[in-house]
Amino acid sequence: MPIHANDPSRQTWLPVPEHSDFPIQNIPFGVFLTRDDIITIGTRIGDHAIDLGALHQLGYFENIPLTDDIFLQDTLNDFISDGQKTWRLVRNRISEIFDINNETLKNNEAHKKIVLFSMDEIEMQLPVQVGDYTDFYSSKEHATNVGTMFRDPDNALMPNWLHIPVGYHGRSSTIVPSGTPIRRPQGQTLPKGEETPVFGPSRLVDFELEMAFITTDTNALGEPVSVDEAEEYIFGMVLFNDWSARDIQKWEYVPLGPFLSKNFASSISPWIVTLDALQPFRVESPKQNPEPLPYLQQKERYSYDINLEVGIATEDGSETTISNSNFKYMYWTMAQQLAHHTINGCKVNSGDMMGSGTISGPTPDSYGSMLELSWQGTKPIKLNDGSERKFIQDNDTVIMRGHCSNNEVRIGFGEVRTKLLPPFETKKKG
Amino acid sequence: MPIHANDPSRQTWLPVPEHSDFPIQNIPFGVFLTRDDIITIGTRIGDHAIDLGALHQLGYFENIPLTDDIFLQDTLNDFISDGQKTWRLVRNRISEIFDINNETLKNNEAHKKIVLFSMDEIEMQLPVQVGDYTDFYSSKEHATNVGTMFRDPDNALMPNWLHIPVGYHGRSSTIVPSGTPIRRPQGQTLPKGEETPVFGPSRLVDFELEMAFITTDTNALGEPVSVDEAEEYIFGMVLFNDWSARDIQKWEYVPLGPFLSKNFASSISPWIVTLDALQPFRVESPKQNPEPLPYLQQKERYSYDINLEVGIATEDGSETTISNSNFKYMYWTMAQQLAHHTINGCKVNSGDMMGSGTISGPTPDSYGSMLELSWQGTKPIKLNDGSERKFIQDNDTVIMRGHCSNNEVRIGFGEVRTKLLPPFETKKKG
Repeated sequence: MPIHANDPSRQTWLPVPEHSDFPIQNIPFGVFLTRDDIITIGTRIGDHAIDLGALHQLGYFENIPLTDDIFLQDTLNDFISDGQKTWRLVRNRISEIFDINNETLKNNEAHKKIVLFSMDEIEMQLPVQVGDYTDFYSSKEHATNVGTMFRDPDNALMPNWLHIPVGYHGRSSTIVPSGTPIRRPQGQTLPKGEETPVFGPSRLVDFELEMAFITTDTNALGEPVSVDEAEEYIFGMVLFNDWSARDIQKWEYVPLGPFLSKNFASSISPWIVTLDALQPFRVESPKQNPEPLPYLQQKERYSYDINLEVGIATEDGSETTISNSNFKYMYWTMAQQLAHHTINGCKVNSGDMMGSGTISGPTPDSYGSMLELSWQGTKPIKLNDGSERKFIQDNDTVIMRGHCSNNEVRIGFGEVRTKLLPPFETKKKG
Repeated sequence: MPIHANDPSRQTWLPVPEHSDFPIQNIPFGVFLTRDDIITIGTRIGDHAIDLGALHQLGYFENIPLTDDIFLQDTLNDFISDGQKTWRLVRNRISEIFDINNETLKNNEAHKKIVLFSMDEIEMQLPVQVGDYTDFYSSKEHATNVGTMFRDPDNALMPNWLHIPVGYHGRSSTIVPSGTPIRRPQGQTLPKGEETPVFGPSRLVDFELEMAFITTDTNALGEPVSVDEAEEYIFGMVLFNDWSARDIQKWEYVPLGPFLSKNFASSISPWIVTLDALQPFRVESPKQNPEPLPYLQQKERYSYDINLEVGIATEDGSETTISNSNFKYMYWTMAQQLAHHTINGCKVNSGDMMGSGTISGPTPDSYGSMLELSWQGTKPIKLNDGSERKFIQDNDTVIMRGHCSNNEVRIGFGEVRTKLLPPFETKKKG
């Protein structure tokens, strides 16, 4: 099916600010609370949010096989379950409705009143109910940096790393949308040189710059998804901040992996940008040596050229960009991750989320975590307000942004913005 | 609130076979498909399943604050969300309805026709939608056995083990109810002495004898649950078989923990036995030395005396009991596990499941996995059909059972029974 919606020459009758992440070629999907306190599924063009539930009720999706309530839901899970063919029909139709030459909605003031919202009058929600969240560890630069710091610079990568897109299960219940503040976690850490742990707030709270993809559900329990078909199961992507408490992690992670050091929160950007919208930005993936086992060999191996940046905003409101990275650096592709995840028959459901792992580039200014940027705290980062950071401080806001661009179009993810609050205080009795 | 339902002297007008796991003092909760292909929430007495949705519609739960459709659902999540007070009101009422001296339902043939099913005409379903599944590692005997085999017998326990109820996230989407067959997983393993992995079916498929508890949702993101309040958040327990592929596990698990070696399937018994029903079987927990950090110190530290057994049934139909263990051996209590899980502010939801970790007792015949029972394959187990097992073979059925008993009453979990099928075969084209 041709994806008309990607046509770079198409223009829209809605205003789109210069350098917007959301031209008519994007058409992401999200869930929002309207000014009338109703939750609906929508999309975004420029600074307008569009109520797809209302559009559907008004008949704009005629002849597309959709249930009546598909967009009148709290989450996108059922829509994602409808599959790639339906996603494309809907995205193409939205593109037609808002085409500059289509006057149907453009000239219907009554309909526009119902369908259109200004971004500042709505509240973005989690776009999916995440059944299972998996985090990979697929940036060679990140794995090498961590291995160099914590183990042996000459053998920084574990023996399995070049053979397996290493991953592990994370916590779904603490995935929150951009704008939700989180608390500095408390827990056990082992002070240097001691044998007995102490309790208290983590002193080493860090972000991890990641992206995550969201899947649909088509394999049965026990059946693998082949690597060459894997992208058909991927609905789209979001920015992902995999919050981490390094001191808790170090003490707890042997032998079963990170747990409380990660599961206090993960923050995502609220608009899911479809894999379809990203097609113009395909680029070759880094060469793999050694060649992986056959079930991980893709006929065409490609990634996406997505520029990423991380900023820290301090309480005075000033923001400092501290990293510029790119999704294209990932050693393992999303298709390889999904093929690996299901090779044992693991069932994948609609709305499942899979994180890339920290996306570090080849140069120190492209590292995807404070751990790497400040090299374990040995090289503090200067911020615009004059202060320094080794890790994230209370009341700092971490902002991640991402976009693709070429000569014709810019497709972006908006941002994921999260404030770190001080630790929870137990109320004293009496 | 007094739990009348636990009164050991109460008798029921329904037939209850001798040594049944489901006397009127049990009253577990589950979800089943009726003879009319309708999914409903129910309980069980003897060999009768009881349709709680129908009972509620007929007015039997009058004066208990329940929504009309609370039992007309696919899962128990919403009922569990209603909280401990409601669970107790409902369980006490069920106990009254089926009391031998209560003639209301007993003498109403029309109602009985709607409400009662024979166990052999229904099909048990997953009782909850599991949002997040966590697996702990809380048997000291099991952790010591594994550490002895894979690391150093003199330092079998990791330095954190006595301080932390070590746990990690598992996969929710592959939790299946008793009776669902699973497939031998395929994946990467590293042959002994080699440096390059190979692909194929796991050769070392194992069970893990565990129990799991199911939570309700009352803490907010960022707020811990205190250890002394933790049990109020626990609805009940099931038997849990944490299927494992030892060869895949060994190659993949460093540094982020087990992943594909575990997430191909976990099997549970379908009736959730409430924590309330288990109260008569409280026993002291093993002493802890060193004393854990204050947030893990319980005023009253107790476990539950639950007898567990594992059997293997072969294709000729014969079954061999290969292990007898007990839940009371667990070093860390469920309350400690839940307090630890939330100390960093991690949000717990209704229907979340937390596994105990393999429950090994102190003697070789009480070990909870083939890995330990056959001591890495060095001591094969003899089965009644004359064959031997180091690990689980294709078409073997693994059965776990559990019950509590004292002089007055026996409360059981029924069983979790799972057949291991041969690996998935990719269909050849043409």
